[in-house]
Amino acid sequence: MLWGGRFSKKPKEALLEFNSGENVTLDSRLVTYDILGSVAHVKMLKKQGILQAKEADEILNALKQIYKKSENGEFELTKDLEDVHTAVENAVTKITSNGKNMHIARSRNDQVLLDMRMYMRDEIINLLEIISSMQEALTKLSKKDSVFPAYTHTRIAQPITLSFYCDSYVKSLDRDKGRLMDCYKRVNQNPLGAGAVAGTSWNIDRKYTTELLGFESVQENALDTISSRGEMEAEFVFALSMVMMKLSKISEELIWLSQKGLVIIPDDYCTGSSMMPNKKNADFLELIRGRTARIYGNLMHILITLKGTPSGYNSDSQETKYALLSAINTTTLAIQIMADVLPKLEINESKVKEELEQGFSQATEIADLLVKKGIPFRDSHKLVGELIQYCESKGKVFGQTSSTEANKIMNVKLSEKEWIATTSLLRERLKTKITFQKSDFAENEKRKLEKIGQNLIGA
Amino acid sequence: MLWGGRFSKKPKEALLEFNSGENVTLDSRLVTYDILGSVAHVKMLKKQGILQAKEADEILNALKQIYKKSENGEFELTKDLEDVHTAVENAVTKITSNGKNMHIARSRNDQVLLDMRMYMRDEIINLLEIISSMQEALTKLSKKDSVFPAYTHTRIAQPITLSFYCDSYVKSLDRDKGRLMDCYKRVNQNPLGAGAVAGTSWNIDRKYTTELLGFESVQENALDTISSRGEMEAEFVFALSMVMMKLSKISEELIWLSQKGLVIIPDDYCTGSSMMPNKKNADFLELIRGRTARIYGNLMHILITLKGTPSGYNSDSQETKYALLSAINTTTLAIQIMADVLPKLEINESKVKEELEQGFSQATEIADLLVKKGIPFRDSHKLVGELIQYCESKGKVFGQTSSTEANKIMNVKLSEKEWIATTSLLRERLKTKITFQKSDFAENEKRKLEKIGQNLIGA
Amino acid sequence: MLWGGRFSKKPKEALLEFNSGENVTLDSRLVTYDILGSVAHVKMLKKQGILQAKEADEILNALKQIYKKSENGEFELTKDLEDVHTAVENAVTKITSNGKNMHIARSRNDQVLLDMRMYMRDEIINLLEIISSMQEALTKLSKKDSVFPAYTHTRIAQPITLSFYCDSYVKSLDRDKGRLMDCYKRVNQNPLGAGAVAGTSWNIDRKYTTELLGFESVQENALDTISSRGEMEAEFVFALSMVMMKLSKISEELIWLSQKGLVIIPDDYCTGSSMMPNKKNADFLELIRGRTARIYGNLMHILITLKGTPSGYNSDSQETKYALLSAINTTTLAIQIMADVLPKLEINESKVKEELEQGFSQATEIADLLVKKGIPFRDSHKLVGELIQYCESKGKVFGQTSSTEANKIMNVKLSEKEWIATTSLLRERLKTKITFQKSDFAENEKRKLEKIGQNLIGA
Amino acid sequence: MLWGGRFSKKPKEALLEFNSGENVTLDSRLVTYDILGSVAHVKMLKKQGILQAKEADEILNALKQIYKKSENGEFELTKDLEDVHTAVENAVTKITSNGKNMHIARSRNDQVLLDMRMYMRDEIINLLEIISSMQEALTKLSKKDSVFPAYTHTRIAQPITLSFYCDSYVKSLDRDKGRLMDCYKRVNQNPLGAGAVAGTSWNIDRKYTTELLGFESVQENALDTISSRGEMEAEFVFALSMVMMKLSKISEELIWLSQKGLVIIPDDYCTGSSMMPNKKNADFLELIRGRTARIYGNLMHILITLKGTPSGYNSDSQETKYALLSAINTTTLAIQIMADVLPKLEINESKVKEELEQGFSQATEIADLLVKKGIPFRDSHKLVGELIQYCESKGKVFGQTSSTEANKIMNVKLSEKEWIATTSLLRERLKTKITFQKSDFAENEKRKLEKIGQNLIGA
Repeated sequence: MLWGGRFSKKPKEALLEFNSGENVTLDSRLVTYDILGSVAHVKMLKKQGILQAKEADEILNALKQIYKKSENGEFELTKDLEDVHTAVENAVTKITSNGKNMHIARSRNDQVLLDMRMYMRDEIINLLEIISSMQEALTKLSKKDSVFPAYTHTRIAQPITLSFYCDSYVKSLDRDKGRLMDCYKRVNQNPLGAGAVAGTSWNIDRKYTTELLGFESVQENALDTISSRGEMEAEFVFALSMVMMKLSKISEELIWLSQKGLVIIPDDYCTGSSMMPNKKNADFLELIRGRTARIYGNLMHILITLKGTPSGYNSDSQETKYALLSAINTTTLAIQIMADVLPKLEINESKVKEELEQGFSQATEIADLLVKKGIPFRDSHKLVGELIQYCESKGKVFGQTSSTEANKIMNVKLSEKEWIATTSLLRERLKTKITFQKSDFAENEKRKLEKIGQNLIGA
Repeated sequence: MLWGGRFSKKPKEALLEFNSGENVTLDSRLVTYDILGSVAHVKMLKKQGILQAKEADEILNALKQIYKKSENGEFELTKDLEDVHTAVENAVTKITSNGKNMHIARSRNDQVLLDMRMYMRDEIINLLEIISSMQEALTKLSKKDSVFPAYTHTRIAQPITLSFYCDSYVKSLDRDKGRLMDCYKRVNQNPLGAGAVAGTSWNIDRKYTTELLGFESVQENALDTISSRGEMEAEFVFALSMVMMKLSKISEELIWLSQKGLVIIPDDYCTGSSMMPNKKNADFLELIRGRTARIYGNLMHILITLKGTPSGYNSDSQETKYALLSAINTTTLAIQIMADVLPKLEINESKVKEELEQGFSQATEIADLLVKKGIPFRDSHKLVGELIQYCESKGKVFGQTSSTEANKIMNVKLSEKEWIATTSLLRERLKTKITFQKSDFAENEKRKLEKIGQNLIGA
Repeated sequence: MLWGGRFSKKPKEALLEFNSGENVTLDSRLVTYDILGSVAHVKMLKKQGILQAKEADEILNALKQIYKKSENGEFELTKDLEDVHTAVENAVTKITSNGKNMHIARSRNDQVLLDMRMYMRDEIINLLEIISSMQEALTKLSKKDSVFPAYTHTRIAQPITLSFYCDSYVKSLDRDKGRLMDCYKRVNQNPLGAGAVAGTSWNIDRKYTTELLGFESVQENALDTISSRGEMEAEFVFALSMVMMKLSKISEELIWLSQKGLVIIPDDYCTGSSMMPNKKNADFLELIRGRTARIYGNLMHILITLKGTPSGYNSDSQETKYALLSAINTTTLAIQIMADVLPKLEINESKVKEELEQGFSQATEIADLLVKKGIPFRDSHKLVGELIQYCESKGKVFGQTSSTEANKIMNVKLSEKEWIATTSLLRERLKTKITFQKSDFAENEKRKLEKIGQNLIGA
Repeated sequence: MLWGGRFSKKPKEALLEFNSGENVTLDSRLVTYDILGSVAHVKMLKKQGILQAKEADEILNALKQIYKKSENGEFELTKDLEDVHTAVENAVTKITSNGKNMHIARSRNDQVLLDMRMYMRDEIINLLEIISSMQEALTKLSKKDSVFPAYTHTRIAQPITLSFYCDSYVKSLDRDKGRLMDCYKRVNQNPLGAGAVAGTSWNIDRKYTTELLGFESVQENALDTISSRGEMEAEFVFALSMVMMKLSKISEELIWLSQKGLVIIPDDYCTGSSMMPNKKNADFLELIRGRTARIYGNLMHILITLKGTPSGYNSDSQETKYALLSAINTTTLAIQIMADVLPKLEINESKVKEELEQGFSQATEIADLLVKKGIPFRDSHKLVGELIQYCESKGKVFGQTSSTEANKIMNVKLSEKEWIATTSLLRERLKTKITFQKSDFAENEKRKLEKIGQNLIGA
């Protein structure tokens, strides 16, 4: 353990287990970042003359050895060490006793912040790319363009097109990418050097580590830096909540559209019932809904944790790691599944048309036509309402009603051609060629961070 | 898989993984219950003549074999099988092809409900006992009875005693046990026989399985039964949220009381800082606060999941299993740690007295005395306020103020004896002998359920 | 103001407004309880000789006058007084200067607890009765008994009956009433006498006020009592969350069932669109869903507030009043609307049958029949799956398929009669005569509490 | 009402009340925006020749009249009209029957989105300015610069300065402003023209209304636009949650720091107890904590509402208005109170020093010095730990310990001068001159939007 001089007894095992919680599992995601961060820290200590060159080089060599081990899956975290920081430092010290000095001018408080920031950077970039792949999937699906239903209040509203529908989610996801990039800005600040809570009296060079680690700038105030543990996590998980909320909406829609036969989900995405031979269930869509609730729970977990503590470091914040990783894993997987299935969906056009006809979806178009004929809008709205009442009483849809009947009921004079055109379900104006930005930002950052890593650890 | 006749393609692997989620881990907690439930189901099918005696006995034998295996840790769930139900049925069918019939008149929908109810019964009983052990710990601590501070608005209010403080949590936890027992009533209803959603046309005997499995009664309406998945889970996790909320409060209090030196937490429950040699932190208390937020997140997870679906079975509800198990594990561990540490706390009586003096904690007692002397309450309240202003201006506490001074400021005539008695910090009337019910209920239910298990599986 | 002796400056107006928040509105619900509670308190002070008989009687008279005023709507709360307690005490003091003594041996801390407990008792009773009225509404609806669809995974599962559907919610609501009654037990404890946090040195008689106010027992430990502010509120709002969750489910179902035309919602419960003449939306059902989210928010509000404070009184808890009242108002109104509309729903039986046929809802029944004919269950399950594949390829439902075809595909020998009986959609066994307990408990408690009120305030 | 042609019965009153909810109150905040939006819409209809010039001008005149009325407080919303849109249109139609046509090519769905976006723009700008004023308040407070304590784990960590503390919150709030500005980008998109869900067949000019209303760009896809109701609200309330979380932290800190006497809160921000004359409570700080929980509840309310619906318009989203307004009001008020009180706080420097000494806050500095003397970091950490054990056993702090003693215990050779310098509590390097950006952005946008309003409605 990295402390203990002041204590008369050692903490008990059960307690250590309670304290470390899921750290062994969670921290395995952080090993690489912890090593790279330590490399940058030690290089800076060397440059500043805080560590002697030889001393520093021995530590750096040890760190590189551990990095290789870790890459080969030979560096495992164990329960007896408190966390990833302790594990890495201990491993270094086994190789060279100079390891005892690598923690100069650093605390686990700024170290864990550093690890988390580096981890979040990578995951944001990854999510930006995965969201783009979902937008591509929507674009592919939109190529099967056809008439499609738009609902409001879960009732048929107006006819749209499949490409218009797909485009709506592409545009919506653009905002999600925007939120993730905004979050990235705030994540991409260097916390190293904040020490425990008040910086350090050592003459460190924070700009240098900022450069080495590829951060955009230094997060200046040390107390603010330490207190911000969890803040970026909250913003990140909020952004994921919004993505999942949209996946939940698509899922809800596909469940119902497929239940009605308007959309067909491929068999190999469905499961059956152990009792009822007639069932074909799209479990994954229901699970996406349920896991959206999980992400909301993760968000609350983080927010409530943050509310409950004063500023400075508090162990409560360890919990934000757990919630964040859960949210990232769940969301990533859900988007991937969705991106995979979307292009494979089939539309049953005739059923779509039936649905649209039965919902009198052309009503607004007819009312607009009446207005163009000089009838005030509120009055035409009423007249079409009356026409629908007539149709319903006769058990007909617009497509089965003649212009003569329509004219009589509404006391207007539409030509047969006008009537046909207006009651058609095709909406040329809504056919949409989808455009969206593939994430250049993500691509560039990714390449940049890869180089940063290579520079730190050597080719 | 237990279905597939209707399908043209098999679900893909990634999808199955997404669908099964953490089932492999979570369901390992359910194996025993799944087997016992199947034993009861098959016994009933035999009794009703739905299965022939020989056929049934072969299945029962197979189930007992698997039970033994499971007890020896030789029955492991794997990812390729969807869930515990599939795993158990497949294992039976490997032993006897009659296994193919054990699912007659049953669905996984009522089966998973059954497993969860049996699991929840055991966990509620366990928690009742653990809470009792925490009450015992508080009782032990109360034996070190001493003056203790009571705060309102985080400011010193009045002097109390340690035993009074301990008793307040014992009483509070009594209500939590009450909530868990109330929840138990609703959990302890037999769902088996509800089938997929509409019962079954087989001539089953639900009362018989109710008896075999030790339930209090049958949950009658099949649709209600299936729809109630998650409802008991929500109530259970709510009850745990309340317990954790209280643990969070104690933790908050101990953090502050120990920071001020009024209470001393044993060294072996504390951890240090990797950077600051002066730190002695009670991490576990902070983690309890943070994990309370986790439980709240679990509760939201379940509630939101339930809101998002129509009645009948929906896969979303699978998520409630995850949230429930997380909440149970976390809460159980937290109570145990707390029960362990409480009796080991030490009170620094002189510091407590200093704190109480500096907070003018005897003010109410003085005001009450003035009222007894004939001064209206609102006026005596004001007079004591003025006395405090005087003391503050002199930098004194009541204990350092003479009756003469007090009388002069308040324009009253208290005798020296009255003044001494009133400003003393001892509160004999608040010394409390703690009483609480050790959970006979839990003890009895536990024994009953153990017998039930033995009867089902054989000695 | 009821304090101020110790202070050099008065709090500023903006601050007082911030502090009192919505108190003026919220506390208007508490006036009656505050007065009744004060009557009981003063009667006790008189009986114990703490107040002289004459003095006490003058206060009691004043309280009765204010009570009358309040009943006539002539007692209004204003922003300049901090809260209901201050308003009532000031009003008494205006009538008789003895009012200055009515607060002896009491604090606003136990007083607000008392008001809230009395308020919650009344609201729980009210909600029990309103839930019963919804169960009656479901019973009425069930009289229109007909074939009805049961879904799992939002796909047709099996045919049920309307009465079976209605019964499922009646049974479900029984558990909600159970939860409310369990909550009532914990609410129905007398907090008066707990003082600020540590009781009082006055010789009060808590049993006597318990009797006068109709509580079941005394909540003994004063610190526990004060700390329990918000705990009962949380439990109450949790119980309401569960009710609303179920209303959200019914709403979701009715939205979809009416969208598909299986259920008809009366016109006068629907609203239209300002733009689209074809729309008929059941806004209230959507709002019930949205307000369920509100209640969940209220629950989180309370739980998070409770987590964030140490024990004893903290002003944070004032927020629980706001959240509770919001939850009660919203839930009460939602149940009433639902109870009103349910009996007016109409079922379109032919559409229901079409839905059930298209979902091959008879599949389980057919599989069960095959088992009875000696085919192992897992095999019959597969055979029926294959029959469905055949029907789908022919564009037929079971009702359009002959026994000959069925026998051929499944390689079995069902008689025409068996085939007809099994594929019929009628489920006699599921026709349900609904039973439920009208809340005698609520009725009795209500009468009891009315008497208590009359005894306190005079005829 | 704006619809009704299709209906046979009118909705009942109770139902309308349930449906409109708090609309009468909430929508009063939207009247101005609704009128301005209508002006822009009608101007566009005129420009496009959809309305004749004379017709349009009459409507515009009517709208201006209503605007004036509204400014003078003479335009009140009433319960019988569904919402603000209906109220304004009806008022116009009373003045000129051409009002019947002002809704051409528009739906209440895009109209309410427009109102909300305009409302949110103003509120974001307002909040940016209020947050700046809190940063100014922190700057003012920092001028009273003094030694100040930094805690981690609620234990003394290291000495800092007041200005460093203040700066940490200024920097933290900078990120909050960043989040609000990021949100503003997404809010500042023109939804008008999206119609009910699928745009309109009228030849409208969305760029023109975008310009008139000062939006940055058009939100293109109509379905996406309608579905995005609540999304910006969620992001806004999330940003507010983060602000409130920080206010909750400051509040928590001030409660404790003032309880210990390190910080003094002015009397006129405090309240007393009705029972205990010794109490001086900072209610507003506790209420800020409690209202943070309220905002979290609002956030959950919105997020859960959004999850529960498919895309397109659903009435559930009406609830997001309620939650948003609650969150904005609460947060605005809380920041204002905090900005008001901060500069008035006083620091008790001698008590701060005592706290820092008792927490051995100079330990890290001493350990660093030992390292500089050539002792490996892990070893010096241990030595200082042992020195603290020694001091504690002697009941001393560092300031009461001589260099000789220290040297002996740690077996080192520090000069008296080094010892004095290191154990001093002054941290010159942490004295901070606060810098932050006053929100030029807010200032500019505000001026721009005011001009937009004047242009639309006339001088």
